[in-house]
Amino acid sequence: MDIALLGGTGDIGEGLALRWAYDTNHDVIVGSRDPEKAENKAEEYETELASRGTDVTVEGLGNEDAAARADVVVVAVPAYHLTDTIEAVADHLDDAILVSPAVGMKRDEDGFHYNRPGVGSVTELAAQAAPEGTQVVGAFHNLAAGRLANLDAEIDWDTIVVGDETDPKDTVCELADGIEGLRPLDGGPLSNAAEIEGLTPLLINVARHNDGMHDLGVTFQ
Amino acid sequence: MDIALLGGTGDIGEGLALRWAYDTNHDVIVGSRDPEKAENKAEEYETELASRGTDVTVEGLGNEDAAARADVVVVAVPAYHLTDTIEAVADHLDDAILVSPAVGMKRDEDGFHYNRPGVGSVTELAAQAAPEGTQVVGAFHNLAAGRLANLDAEIDWDTIVVGDETDPKDTVCELADGIEGLRPLDGGPLSNAAEIEGLTPLLINVARHNDGMHDLGVTFQ
Ligand SMILES: C[C@H](OP(=O)(O)OC[C@@H](O)[C@@H](O)[C@@H](O)Cn1c2nc(=O)[nH]c(=O)c-2cc2ccc(O)cc21)C(=O)N[C@@H](CCC(=O)N[C@@H](CCC(=O)O)C(=O)O)C(=O)O
Ligand SMILES: C[C@H](OP(=O)(O)OC[C@@H](O)[C@@H](O)[C@@H](O)Cn1c2nc(=O)[nH]c(=O)c-2cc2ccc(O)cc21)C(=O)N[C@@H](CCC(=O)N[C@@H](CCC(=O)O)C(=O)O)C(=O)O
Ligand SMILES: NC(=O)c1ccc[n+]([C@@H]2O[C@H](COP(=O)([O-])OP(=O)(O)OC[C@H]3O[C@@H](n4cnc5c(N)ncnc54)[C@H](OP(=O)(O)O)[C@@H]3O)[C@@H](O)[C@H]2O)c1
Ligand SMILES: NC(=O)c1ccc[n+]([C@@H]2O[C@H](COP(=O)([O-])OP(=O)(O)OC[C@H]3O[C@@H](n4cnc5c(N)ncnc54)[C@H](OP(=O)(O)O)[C@@H]3O)[C@@H](O)[C@H]2O)c1
Repeated sequence: MDIALLGGTGDIGEGLALRWAYDTNHDVIVGSRDPEKAENKAEEYETELASRGTDVTVEGLGNEDAAARADVVVVAVPAYHLTDTIEAVADHLDDAILVSPAVGMKRDEDGFHYNRPGVGSVTELAAQAAPEGTQVVGAFHNLAAGRLANLDAEIDWDTIVVGDETDPKDTVCELADGIEGLRPLDGGPLSNAAEIEGLTPLLINVARHNDGMHDLGVTFQ
Repeated sequence: MDIALLGGTGDIGEGLALRWAYDTNHDVIVGSRDPEKAENKAEEYETELASRGTDVTVEGLGNEDAAARADVVVVAVPAYHLTDTIEAVADHLDDAILVSPAVGMKRDEDGFHYNRPGVGSVTELAAQAAPEGTQVVGAFHNLAAGRLANLDAEIDWDTIVVGDETDPKDTVCELADGIEGLRPLDGGPLSNAAEIEGLTPLLINVARHNDGMHDLGVTFQ
């Protein structure tokens, strides 16, 4: 499968790009507003992978071209730039599945807090911004980018996948399952996304308040 | 330590009562609005424990008397009766630590959703209802009562503990740690409670949407 990571130059983009390239046979395309930045980052990821004996091509393209090439498009940009980013690639999505890992948070002196958008969740915001007929799936909200990007670090995490249709959800679950140590779980329809997004500030708060814990994920049992 | 469970006749009360009586040397007191109901339930718990070779006394009392006897008072009643229940025992709390495991949820056809009170969280609602000077701690929000109450079932769960003062939080962490398979984690101050409470509907949604998963908790790693 061809997976494009819009804003794949950033933290979670790097983590997902490296893990998919390292653990699976999917083709990873790094997208950026700036094609040159995308190329440079893609090369950086290739070097990192080659140093571990994985010789793969990671392509770097502008977000539009990356989206046009992909079966699955992960919008790996900050929540407040999600709508703009989706609108910018809207004409290039064809039948691609759009995946949102985005979480809105605010921070005060006590900790991080979920900043729930009026429409219900950031994932539903992505669905609203997507062109009619695009299949939107929420996933990867609760994975710590830093640990994901460190291929020496083992993970043992769940990721909850939400979506209103079964097929695209199954595809994203398969992509998640391809990453070693990651287990996809079905969270139901998009309208259940808020509770998933709200778990992210909790992960950060727990990391901040407990010695020796950082870059956390969860497992459900 | 003496632990009172107000509404300890209910689901989470039964789970915590059995686990503390089975796994620790703490004294468990079951509270109820109806002292006779409390006595009957306490006897039921004793019978269950005795059948496993644990001969302990579980006392059953009215909520007021239970609160008066305890070092730690867990308010194990539905969120919408929390304020009433705390006000009813207010004159009997002395220096007891008040613990809230309560979560407000609403349900629609898609799943369960967090019903966040205006004051920020149900745990902060408990703090507001408590008499001036009472130390309030949030804990046990994310434990499935059914699994807890089944002493044959092993658990491997975390519980996030929040509170504005260190000492009562440490005490509750020790109580949690006494339950086999339960790990307390520090969640910071009470104002971080909403994200913990919001995890509960997610646990229920995941259980509903994934075959073979029920009565879930989480671990952070
Ligand atoms: C290095 C790291 O900071 P950071 O690189 O900015 O990363 C902080 C977070 O952004 C990072 O942890 C994100 O992965 C958090 N995070 C998310 N962050 C987001 O912004 N959005 C998300 O959607 C998101 C999801 C997520 C899911 C799971 C999870 O575990 C974490 C998640 C850190 O440990 N920060 C410390 C400060 C450390 C620091 O700056 N140290 C200085 C030294 C200063 C000193 O001496 O104190 C240094 O390292 O040089 C802190 O915030 O308290
Ligand atoms: C038996 C169980 O239902 P129940 O006893 O009502 O329990 C449902 C929930 O209340 C129970 O799971 C709670 O523990 C959920 N729960 C909380 N529930 C709350 O109300 N408040 C909480 O704060 C809370 C916290 C919590 C934390 C972790 C967690 O994992 C669960 C948590 C169940 O599996 N229900 C099924 C229906 C099963 C059912 O009713 N079956 C019938 C047969 C009907 C048939 O044939 O379909 C039967 O068993 O007799 C369902 O809701 O889909
Ligand atoms: N960090 C984590 O641990 C983590 C974990 C799970 C989910 N997430 C979610 O994933 C998303 C990305 O997080 P991140 O930490 O990777 O963010 P980030 O590193 O800060 O940014 C990712 C990329 O977004 C692009 N971007 C920045 N500003 C933009 C703008 N105005 N318009 C369009 N694109 C812009 C940039 O790419 P270009 O400059 O190349 O265009 C940047 O590299 C967020 O929604 C976050 O909630 C993060
Ligand atoms: N169920 C779970 O898995 C679970 C897990 C974690 C946390 N919690 C939280 O723990 C609390 C209790 O949950 P539960 O499932 O144990 O509830 P429950 O079984 O429905 O009720 C617990 C007890 O509350 C008392 N009660 C009922 N109505 C009341 C009223 N009007 N005023 C005062 N007390 C009343 C009853 O005790 P008496 O009739 O004996 O007075 C009842 O046995 C909730 O806030 C819930 O969010 C539940």
